[in-house]
Amino acid sequence: MTTRVPRGFRLAAVHCGLKSDPARSDLTLIACDRDATAAGVYTQNRFCAAPVLLDRGRTPSAKIRAVVANSGNANACTGEQGLRDAREMARLTAQACGVEEAQVLVLSTGVIGEPLPMLKISAGIAAAAAQLDADDPALVAAARGLMTTDAYHKLAARQLRLAGQDVSLAGLAKGAGMIGPNLATMLAVLLTDAALTPEDAQRLLSTVVDETFNCISVEGHTSTNDTVLLLASGAAHQRTLDGPNLAAFEGALQGVCGELARAIPNDGEGATHLIQIEVRGCARREDARRIAREIANSPLVKTAVAGGDPNWGRIVSAAGNAGVEFQPGRVDLSVNGCRLFQQGAPAAFDAAAISASIRANRQTDIVVQLAEGDCQARFWTSDLTAEYVRINSDYHT
Amino acid sequence: MTTRVPRGFRLAAVHCGLKSDPARSDLTLIACDRDATAAGVYTQNRFCAAPVLLDRGRTPSAKIRAVVANSGNANACTGEQGLRDAREMARLTAQACGVEEAQVLVLSTGVIGEPLPMLKISAGIAAAAAQLDADDPALVAAARGLMTTDAYHKLAARQLRLAGQDVSLAGLAKGAGMIGPNLATMLAVLLTDAALTPEDAQRLLSTVVDETFNCISVEGHTSTNDTVLLLASGAAHQRTLDGPNLAAFEGALQGVCGELARAIPNDGEGATHLIQIEVRGCARREDARRIAREIANSPLVKTAVAGGDPNWGRIVSAAGNAGVEFQPGRVDLSVNGCRLFQQGAPAAFDAAAISASIRANRQTDIVVQLAEGDCQARFWTSDLTAEYVRINSDYHT
Repeated sequence: MTTRVPRGFRLAAVHCGLKSDPARSDLTLIACDRDATAAGVYTQNRFCAAPVLLDRGRTPSAKIRAVVANSGNANACTGEQGLRDAREMARLTAQACGVEEAQVLVLSTGVIGEPLPMLKISAGIAAAAAQLDADDPALVAAARGLMTTDAYHKLAARQLRLAGQDVSLAGLAKGAGMIGPNLATMLAVLLTDAALTPEDAQRLLSTVVDETFNCISVEGHTSTNDTVLLLASGAAHQRTLDGPNLAAFEGALQGVCGELARAIPNDGEGATHLIQIEVRGCARREDARRIAREIANSPLVKTAVAGGDPNWGRIVSAAGNAGVEFQPGRVDLSVNGCRLFQQGAPAAFDAAAISASIRANRQTDIVVQLAEGDCQARFWTSDLTAEYVRINSDYHT
Repeated sequence: MTTRVPRGFRLAAVHCGLKSDPARSDLTLIACDRDATAAGVYTQNRFCAAPVLLDRGRTPSAKIRAVVANSGNANACTGEQGLRDAREMARLTAQACGVEEAQVLVLSTGVIGEPLPMLKISAGIAAAAAQLDADDPALVAAARGLMTTDAYHKLAARQLRLAGQDVSLAGLAKGAGMIGPNLATMLAVLLTDAALTPEDAQRLLSTVVDETFNCISVEGHTSTNDTVLLLASGAAHQRTLDGPNLAAFEGALQGVCGELARAIPNDGEGATHLIQIEVRGCARREDARRIAREIANSPLVKTAVAGGDPNWGRIVSAAGNAGVEFQPGRVDLSVNGCRLFQQGAPAAFDAAAISASIRANRQTDIVVQLAEGDCQARFWTSDLTAEYVRINSDYHT
């Protein structure tokens, strides 16, 4: 079996003591053996974490050499000390990898408002740098090193042939909600050996994230640390991609990001269903997305799916609540392929059969069809269960 | 004890068969013995119910004589038949009260997407018209006739002296969430014997609703039927109110609407806490409200309060997620009077004491202070418990 790690990259993860369980790794290092093109997309939260502030100033770039990530501590709401600590993580990583401090990007996820234990981080970086590897187990270990309350690690990969060369794209991500006490964040890193200019890398990443990681929610609470990075080593080519090759690469990037993005609400805290919401027939794509997001964030829709309830009233009233103009009398709604609502009025359907289909499948498909235009959007979310509430209200002083 | 029913109004409620339990009334009638000034504020949902469409066309008005309300069926998503049924409810009420059909307003709340059983409604209107009364028990009965999953009926009243006359203001409301299977809605009716012009009535009602009923949520899902009506019989005065008297009336209206509005999330499904969120120091009132609403609608904040967890990280990250520009380093946060976060950084606090205070009080007070200006807003919501999820996912085909 060929490894899924794109050429030019080596990875490692270690336990350095941020998590109490020594069997769970909490520090991931990704190194590139040459200057990589790098692009980033970051949280819109006004309280963005120190590593977000650092990385935002360093991307897009043509000279990135490493990404260091810790889980268990978000380094968010930590003030000036937090910024110094993020820079120190970059400096220690640069030292261990023999590169410049400004060539390192930093990711953190975990508890908000606590200073990073820098002695542990420092030891962890040194240990990880000594274990860097380019095989599949190293990729899995790196993904596991990002996890907080995730039930499973999240990886996706594509192989394609571009400009006469084999190209590899691999993505790793974490996220299961913004989690108690005080945990946060979704993180993703995309690695490729394709050759990309920083401008193309940033444009592709922004476009693709907008339709993948920006179209998911567990409970609609954007964290302080959300970050998606794309690193391109260029090891596969002499020249940067353009034209149809660049378009083909974008397709692969879309596929990997979509897979990783859907894995997050599928692993949502307490979730028993992944809900896919497709809204079609809108005048503008933003309208479709607003309606899809309103449905995705309705606790009433999410509890109905958890209960196997084909409750079309909750879905259409959520759609009507999105602040988008449309003709209510021209709306159709299907759940798991069954028409529940047609031209603004209830359709005759077998409620027991649809309920059984919701219960029998991990994924529930909701399709809302309007008659305002040709734009559409998809959004993915978790259902809402008593277990989600238990996880997030379980607090003992 | 003097009655709280404003002069000019009589009320009644009966059971006509929309609810299965014969002990629970499901049809309320309010009649005025003269032409009343009437104003209305309605749901923004694109799927608004038939009675909302009807009432919207009839307010503001100087000639309203009756309000008929049913609970147990929302008459929403019922198409042309729904509109004919709403008009027929008005016609039957007009006939029973000896007024014109166009002088009647209609309210409905309950299951979405089912046609109204008009024979039952017709019998209910006739029965209610024969029982109209102007005493306190009639007011309580009218409020109870609006209830769906409400645990208690919601009434508030004020007596004041304006322009040399005693003036009475009474409000009745219902609402506890948008409730399964397929129930919906908050409704409120304000009655007064003050004399108001239709323009003043509409302006005052819109202003006051904006700061009261528009500042509450249970789960952030605006229903298809939300309606607030103000009816002024004018029985207390020869001339309409103006100047300081009108301002004093607005103050009383604000008080009554605030009390009724807070009663709704306090009675939120499964709620163990009423959460009051106050955001101060914003450049614009709309900014303050957006931040307050974002905090109010965060399941992570709501589960934290349910668990007695003084989780400031969830509150400030929700604030940062509202799409409002502010300086994160100048934000303070208090919970139940205790400072948890100061100038953008965690403060030292006794977590066990604050947790005990959250557990000991039905109301949790969250105050967020920014440094952008002098505008502020308040918002009220319920906490989120496993019981809410149980109520809303409990479905058996």
